Amino acid sequence: MSQTSDVPCHFTPPPVLSKFSQRRTWASDQPISFLMQQGVENPQCISLAAGLVDPVTLPVDTVQSAVAELLRTESAARECLQYGTTQGSERLRRQIVQLIAQMEQRPDLACDDVLDNLILTTGSQQLLSLVCEVLFDPGDICLVAAPTYFVFLGTLAGVGARAISIDSDEQGMKIDSLEEELSRIEQAGELSRVKLIYTVDYYDNPAGTTLSLERRQALLDVARRWSRDHRLLILEDAAYRELRYDGPELPSIWSLDETREYVILAQTFSKSFSPGIRVGHGLVPRELVSPICDRKGNEDFGSPHFTQQLLATVIESGRYRDHVARLCQRYRVKCDAMLAAAKKYFSDIPQTAWIEPDGGLYVWLTAPPQIDTSFSGPLFSRAVEEGMMYVPGDFCFTGPYASRPRQYMRLSFGVQDEAGIDEGMRRLSVAMRSCISSSPSGRGHG
Amino acid sequence: MSQTSDVPCHFTPPPVLSKFSQRRTWASDQPISFLMQQGVENPQCISLAAGLVDPVTLPVDTVQSAVAELLRTESAARECLQYGTTQGSERLRRQIVQLIAQMEQRPDLACDDVLDNLILTTGSQQLLSLVCEVLFDPGDICLVAAPTYFVFLGTLAGVGARAISIDSDEQGMKIDSLEEELSRIEQAGELSRVKLIYTVDYYDNPAGTTLSLERRQALLDVARRWSRDHRLLILEDAAYRELRYDGPELPSIWSLDETREYVILAQTFSKSFSPGIRVGHGLVPRELVSPICDRKGNEDFGSPHFTQQLLATVIESGRYRDHVARLCQRYRVKCDAMLAAAKKYFSDIPQTAWIEPDGGLYVWLTAPPQIDTSFSGPLFSRAVEEGMMYVPGDFCFTGPYASRPRQYMRLSFGVQDEAGIDEGMRRLSVAMRSCISSSPSGRGHG
Repeated sequence: MSQTSDVPCHFTPPPVLSKFSQRRTWASDQPISFLMQQGVENPQCISLAAGLVDPVTLPVDTVQSAVAELLRTESAARECLQYGTTQGSERLRRQIVQLIAQMEQRPDLACDDVLDNLILTTGSQQLLSLVCEVLFDPGDICLVAAPTYFVFLGTLAGVGARAISIDSDEQGMKIDSLEEELSRIEQAGELSRVKLIYTVDYYDNPAGTTLSLERRQALLDVARRWSRDHRLLILEDAAYRELRYDGPELPSIWSLDETREYVILAQTFSKSFSPGIRVGHGLVPRELVSPICDRKGNEDFGSPHFTQQLLATVIESGRYRDHVARLCQRYRVKCDAMLAAAKKYFSDIPQTAWIEPDGGLYVWLTAPPQIDTSFSGPLFSRAVEEGMMYVPGDFCFTGPYASRPRQYMRLSFGVQDEAGIDEGMRRLSVAMRSCISSSPSGRGHG
Repeated sequence: MSQTSDVPCHFTPPPVLSKFSQRRTWASDQPISFLMQQGVENPQCISLAAGLVDPVTLPVDTVQSAVAELLRTESAARECLQYGTTQGSERLRRQIVQLIAQMEQRPDLACDDVLDNLILTTGSQQLLSLVCEVLFDPGDICLVAAPTYFVFLGTLAGVGARAISIDSDEQGMKIDSLEEELSRIEQAGELSRVKLIYTVDYYDNPAGTTLSLERRQALLDVARRWSRDHRLLILEDAAYRELRYDGPELPSIWSLDETREYVILAQTFSKSFSPGIRVGHGLVPRELVSPICDRKGNEDFGSPHFTQQLLATVIESGRYRDHVARLCQRYRVKCDAMLAAAKKYFSDIPQTAWIEPDGGLYVWLTAPPQIDTSFSGPLFSRAVEEGMMYVPGDFCFTGPYASRPRQYMRLSFGVQDEAGIDEGMRRLSVAMRSCISSSPSGRGHG
């Protein structure tokens, strides 16, 4: 392109690049970008990678009638098109407090005290990000399960925090491992840097596991006991809580913390209703309300008021509850389809295993030890050749890339229908058998 | 509240408070919080403080019909309720590129090159915040006009950046003052810390001024010439651009920068359509797209897809253009009402002055020198007693609180109707006369 005429002719473009902040470096190279790119480049693939919700479940009619209702009265219509507040619509916050009290089967929780500590965000991701912003200085520590939600690992990296993994099993994060790690950190003189324990305690993304009731209480006790020169907080990410297909309705860790001092409870309507309206929320200890709202004031001074009021109308009408019930029916069938396909295609592959989730969107599959499931290993490209995609499990672990386990895959039954799930699993099994037969230790089986 | 039964009885709550990040400290004490609090505590006041849009202008019918249209087709309906992308809906981005090309009267700008560099955000505030995140390390410098948009000063403080004021007059930031400040900074050996020049160049918030065409070009030349070891960027905040009531349609600084390397152009639909849908956007130099999207990925991985698609439908239908035309008619009348009221109530108060804006929502009023307009001065509380509120001008300046000018007020004609504007201005004049007559230097006039 040409220069404008009045630029001095001795000017030589472009002189230099912009100088970015330290934070810019920390925020680069996110697995989600890689995965989305893979999806774009391989549109013919059956993706069991995407954590999207099933499009056929999206509540088109409900949204249509709620908008009509919301805009019917001139004053209410104008209000929802005007600025809201940074903390979010009080009308929606009241509805959410009622929902939470119902989930916990604790009517006493539907009170103004809880209402005041509820903050609405752009998806629960913004809540997770804001918590990190107000807690972590570079070098501070967050304890996470191994594996854990990979987007949150990116958020931690983005503020320069260190994520340290805690072993987990089919009941979630192992409490004895957590205590051992805390002791180790204490001996290293770094206990003052530990600010947060992060847990996806309902139908974990990625592992599909649920933290047992006993461990919920034990985790809270650990946070209390290890709070020395400052409070050690728990960030309870309950994004999938309402997608329950089996097992008991467990109380949140937040509800067990009767003093409301140790637990941040993050939830979202992205999975249970619609990701396109992007309404998430967090219940936080009282002293965190101002820090988080101040920070959100800097970032966007409030998520869209319109979608908040829209959702409040949906919940008030009773249609939200009905939608969640239908959603669980649908996902239960698809979850069963994936587990059936796993049995059908993988049970005769030695040393392969998977976890059966009670809810959520994910099945965590373990490949035989000689198989490298990572992006750079042979299985991923073989799977794409066969026409399917998964999330490589190494994204979900912390620490230097070379030291991460590369034996796992996250498989989602969110988007595909039953036939797609079955075919995707079949293709994965074909790719895996092909890798086993060509791998040094696998030739004997081939 | 009681402890749960299994907490050891030697436990004494609450042991300690959370330890917050450095950033939490930087983000506290924002004027916007104070102003909102004042609004809540004095609901009977006529507020000429709030920068809200006029509720009667909010596009209720347009939104209603756009939602109906958007949800009519099942596949489109599902798409808008699903996750979007971090950068934002391509459909809406195409519409915005067309709008910008029309505003600039440059059809050549409606091209894919521009489309690729457009990012959608939660209001333009999020764009401003993201720019700060990726550019500023603590201690880095941003040059701003004096006065400037006070929320942006909070955003700069939130990332630990230093804001340095540049003198401005009725044509906006003074270019000779800008050059002098850059020389001073260079002599101090800090030129490498200067990352950004921020300007609200159309109908400035708060001063109502518009940067002249000559200064637009000169500002761009300064950015180019002072780009030494890195590029010095301009953040052009054009939030009020479409609210033009008088004067010429000026090209953006962004459009003058033919190499697209030096200017970030931030705009929003909050003022021109509806703040409740919270759609803002930024056109950024190519090398900033990934840094900003990566950072947004950490913060929320995308603003609501639903409101983006809704707005795209509105623009496509031609109703957006019509709405802006009606809006300008309405605000022109209210702007005239405020200027008439200023003349009616303030022209006989010596040493009082105001700037007549060609657009936007604000009139910047200068009080006589003996009047302290700040929150802690006598005028603010007298005005509240009389039943009106304004934004104290000192919020809009940088530097230590004690050294800031306290002679100015930002008055908005956004929310009130003509009668409210007249009455609010009358009450302010009563408060001011009362302060003048009781101030030491003013008694002679009383």
